[in-house]
Amino acid sequence: MQQRVRVLIDCEDAKGLVYKISKVFYDRDLNIDNNREFVDKEQGKFFMRSVVSGKFDRAELTAALQAVIPETANLQVIEPTRKKIVILATKESHALGDILIRHEAGELDANIEAVIANHDSLEGLVRRFDIPFFHVSAEGMSREVHEELVMKLIDEQEFDYIVLAKYMRILTPKFVAHYPLRIINIHHSFLPAFIGANPYKQAHERGVKIIGATAHFVTDDLDEGPIIAQDVIPVNHRMDWKSMQRAGRDVEKIVLSRALSIVLNDRVFVYNNKTIVF
Amino acid sequence: MQQRVRVLIDCEDAKGLVYKISKVFYDRDLNIDNNREFVDKEQGKFFMRSVVSGKFDRAELTAALQAVIPETANLQVIEPTRKKIVILATKESHALGDILIRHEAGELDANIEAVIANHDSLEGLVRRFDIPFFHVSAEGMSREVHEELVMKLIDEQEFDYIVLAKYMRILTPKFVAHYPLRIINIHHSFLPAFIGANPYKQAHERGVKIIGATAHFVTDDLDEGPIIAQDVIPVNHRMDWKSMQRAGRDVEKIVLSRALSIVLNDRVFVYNNKTIVF
Amino acid sequence: MQQRVRVLIDCEDAKGLVYKISKVFYDRDLNIDNNREFVDKEQGKFFMRSVVSGKFDRAELTAALQAVIPETANLQVIEPTRKKIVILATKESHALGDILIRHEAGELDANIEAVIANHDSLEGLVRRFDIPFFHVSAEGMSREVHEELVMKLIDEQEFDYIVLAKYMRILTPKFVAHYPLRIINIHHSFLPAFIGANPYKQAHERGVKIIGATAHFVTDDLDEGPIIAQDVIPVNHRMDWKSMQRAGRDVEKIVLSRALSIVLNDRVFVYNNKTIVF
Amino acid sequence: MQQRVRVLIDCEDAKGLVYKISKVFYDRDLNIDNNREFVDKEQGKFFMRSVVSGKFDRAELTAALQAVIPETANLQVIEPTRKKIVILATKESHALGDILIRHEAGELDANIEAVIANHDSLEGLVRRFDIPFFHVSAEGMSREVHEELVMKLIDEQEFDYIVLAKYMRILTPKFVAHYPLRIINIHHSFLPAFIGANPYKQAHERGVKIIGATAHFVTDDLDEGPIIAQDVIPVNHRMDWKSMQRAGRDVEKIVLSRALSIVLNDRVFVYNNKTIVF
Repeated sequence: MQQRVRVLIDCEDAKGLVYKISKVFYDRDLNIDNNREFVDKEQGKFFMRSVVSGKFDRAELTAALQAVIPETANLQVIEPTRKKIVILATKESHALGDILIRHEAGELDANIEAVIANHDSLEGLVRRFDIPFFHVSAEGMSREVHEELVMKLIDEQEFDYIVLAKYMRILTPKFVAHYPLRIINIHHSFLPAFIGANPYKQAHERGVKIIGATAHFVTDDLDEGPIIAQDVIPVNHRMDWKSMQRAGRDVEKIVLSRALSIVLNDRVFVYNNKTIVF
Repeated sequence: MQQRVRVLIDCEDAKGLVYKISKVFYDRDLNIDNNREFVDKEQGKFFMRSVVSGKFDRAELTAALQAVIPETANLQVIEPTRKKIVILATKESHALGDILIRHEAGELDANIEAVIANHDSLEGLVRRFDIPFFHVSAEGMSREVHEELVMKLIDEQEFDYIVLAKYMRILTPKFVAHYPLRIINIHHSFLPAFIGANPYKQAHERGVKIIGATAHFVTDDLDEGPIIAQDVIPVNHRMDWKSMQRAGRDVEKIVLSRALSIVLNDRVFVYNNKTIVF
Repeated sequence: MQQRVRVLIDCEDAKGLVYKISKVFYDRDLNIDNNREFVDKEQGKFFMRSVVSGKFDRAELTAALQAVIPETANLQVIEPTRKKIVILATKESHALGDILIRHEAGELDANIEAVIANHDSLEGLVRRFDIPFFHVSAEGMSREVHEELVMKLIDEQEFDYIVLAKYMRILTPKFVAHYPLRIINIHHSFLPAFIGANPYKQAHERGVKIIGATAHFVTDDLDEGPIIAQDVIPVNHRMDWKSMQRAGRDVEKIVLSRALSIVLNDRVFVYNNKTIVF
Repeated sequence: MQQRVRVLIDCEDAKGLVYKISKVFYDRDLNIDNNREFVDKEQGKFFMRSVVSGKFDRAELTAALQAVIPETANLQVIEPTRKKIVILATKESHALGDILIRHEAGELDANIEAVIANHDSLEGLVRRFDIPFFHVSAEGMSREVHEELVMKLIDEQEFDYIVLAKYMRILTPKFVAHYPLRIINIHHSFLPAFIGANPYKQAHERGVKIIGATAHFVTDDLDEGPIIAQDVIPVNHRMDWKSMQRAGRDVEKIVLSRALSIVLNDRVFVYNNKTIVF
């Protein structure tokens, strides 16, 4: 059966990996539509992403690959189907809006299953796009109780990734641990500069001449997860922190969407709290 | 006598400052060759830099300006003469070399009075340009003793600014206090990210996708002084920290030279540990 | 009556303009909330934009200003009211969508009066935002006849500016002449590189390493009007022209929105087919 | 004998190329220190650059590779020795100076065999570095006669590449044809914008908001050769064309040095008047 898959392999480096893997493809007469590999010499780690097409049995191909790579290798043979995402937001609409417009245009590579927010101000916008919106107010609740409600709602959806589109609440370790490497956040600073609250205010106070935004996987440590994408813009003394925030929003939304495109197309490996982006 | 001066004023904001100051220029029939002002509304601070030319008595002009601005204002009436600098370096030649080439081409807006280094490896390069080079080894000395020697040498020169062109030693508060707002440093990171030692190693470890450099005035707090200029370049997972360092050097030297041009042309105000750059 | 206006002046340069203008403000006890000026020495042209507030009579202020500036000066005393725009589009939704999201968030500084398109594919998106959408098909019509219909529709709206959000039709001189300096276009290249049709294809063919987008006022000469804003992103050999187009869209929409913010806040002067942006 | 080579292959794409080539490496027990490949699907072209090390006979390896790739393939097996360059310059010192400083620091990956200039103003600078300088004045000569003299001088050197470090003379087709893909030029604009004379003046006149520089191989068509590297910086209405030129020089020298590093490390393929840069 004619089909196409994305093959992702990461493992300890060893001689002949490219040869052995490409032999598996060659023996099955597959086309390599795209191929990238990288060896981290310092860590002795091998990474490869190939898009192959042809007539093959997916299970057989997987077994054949497994046979030529180290036992401890991570092997993924992924069908390029449309992923599913759940979006968490708060009040700001720029990052969410950018995703909604791409979704509407069929350029997102994902379906938005639901938007969940701790305020109701985005409800109107989301409903315009006929996407389910859930308002989970945190008022009068402990962080834990509120998160329970959010997690319950998330778990009722089918989804591959959770996207924090300016979700302005700190997640508990429990939440993070529940969705390992499945949560993507946009932080409104050029990390690791200005970790924590109100980075634009921090940036303004410090008098930097450039500000930025960082999309990253969320891990236990606040704003310390593997970075997927970053970008920056110049600022100057004329801008107060609110002007910086306004200007920064454009960077935030573009960086988040760029990161989403990388993740949704299986173009990223994570190791050592860093990313390899092919 | 036909002449030209740079007038720099910073003070508490008040109604009519632009009117009163421009009246002083108008009454003396001066040409305004360049004029910029800025009011920090939040702090209530007024900044103005005018380049004026015409026939005038500098003392009289200064007195007239003094009479219309608040008593506590800082007023500088500066003749645009070529400044003098002393450069401190260690082993790396890129930032120093960039300054030397500009100096040779007459594009530096300053004379290099001397280069002082704690290693002798740059001696050859500096001597090629017939500029005095002093090697002050720090070997077997306390930081304090070494600095005494360096300060003695510096103080024997006539100079306006001390330029740290990748001088890889930490300065004591005594040194810094001795030359307030007269020391310009290039830090090899996008501050405030990666303060301290080996920022490229830190950046590599953190897995950032962009690195940068920061030129700043040196104050007591390490890498915390007012930022004059910053710039960045993209990096990726293929680069180990030494590749990042190599790539970063181009940013370092350009940012330092850009900052020097700003400082040497009296285009910068410092307040609240930040800069206004006109 | 307490009010605020934007004062824009451009004229032949002359001694004392800043003094005379600021005297008018001072004599009326006005606050200068923001002030920028620029003199093009080469052309002998003076530009000034001041935001002033206080109690004043607008007609009296205008007359007083008129009295101190050259007769041939252009003087605008503008109340900072929300502008009105009409958007022209074709099929692509990214630039239009970006504007719609800002509009919805109240961040556009303008009301969208109508969207007019020569295809109907954007109708769904626009209607989601309860904004009037008009489909004017060009099928089977001469350029002139189609434009007549579009102009008729435009002229039925109240509007300050016409925004071409990827309107993929060439305008006739008649159309352009009808709305002088009131049409803003986003061109999908870093002008003046790749004027004309399919700039991404041209860029790909030429093998450039950077692509860009340009927002400009539309004048008679195709893609030759005064540039308001530009930005760029790196590309590489892996990208075919469609990938460049996809990546370029992010630049297009951000540059257009940045230009809109400049225009809608009266921060731009045009002369000699160039812009002064304050 | 333990050694290391760079293997560069470009040919018509075919199934199994990666497999067959990596098999050659594997069969000889070679380490792949670095490996990149790219297939231009549209053109059906395959590109691969591998750095391999181990014990091998270079002729035997070459023959083995030749046996598995198409007959029409271009195969290079290059020992990573230090290349040799001849530099042509005119009056400006920034690009030349940047190369000299890198050369002095041992960071150029090439020896500078000679600098040839049509003015003598750079002689002092070059001599400071003990590098042969030849002044070939063009005064009173036809372009052809002058070029004859320059070519004679060039051909007396041993060299791999000719670097035009702001050589402000137009080369004849004869000159260019004599050194195919061996001449690297830095053009002071973001090509293809502002081809030809005084691009900064052109850029200023057009009122662009960004300027750039382009390093490219020189071919018959002026400023039309394959682009190796480009970069840009923002400019604004305050800058006259001379300020743009001054600011642009930093981009020029960095882009040229970046392109040199690519070329000197055999990281570039040329086809269809474009480059593949690994």
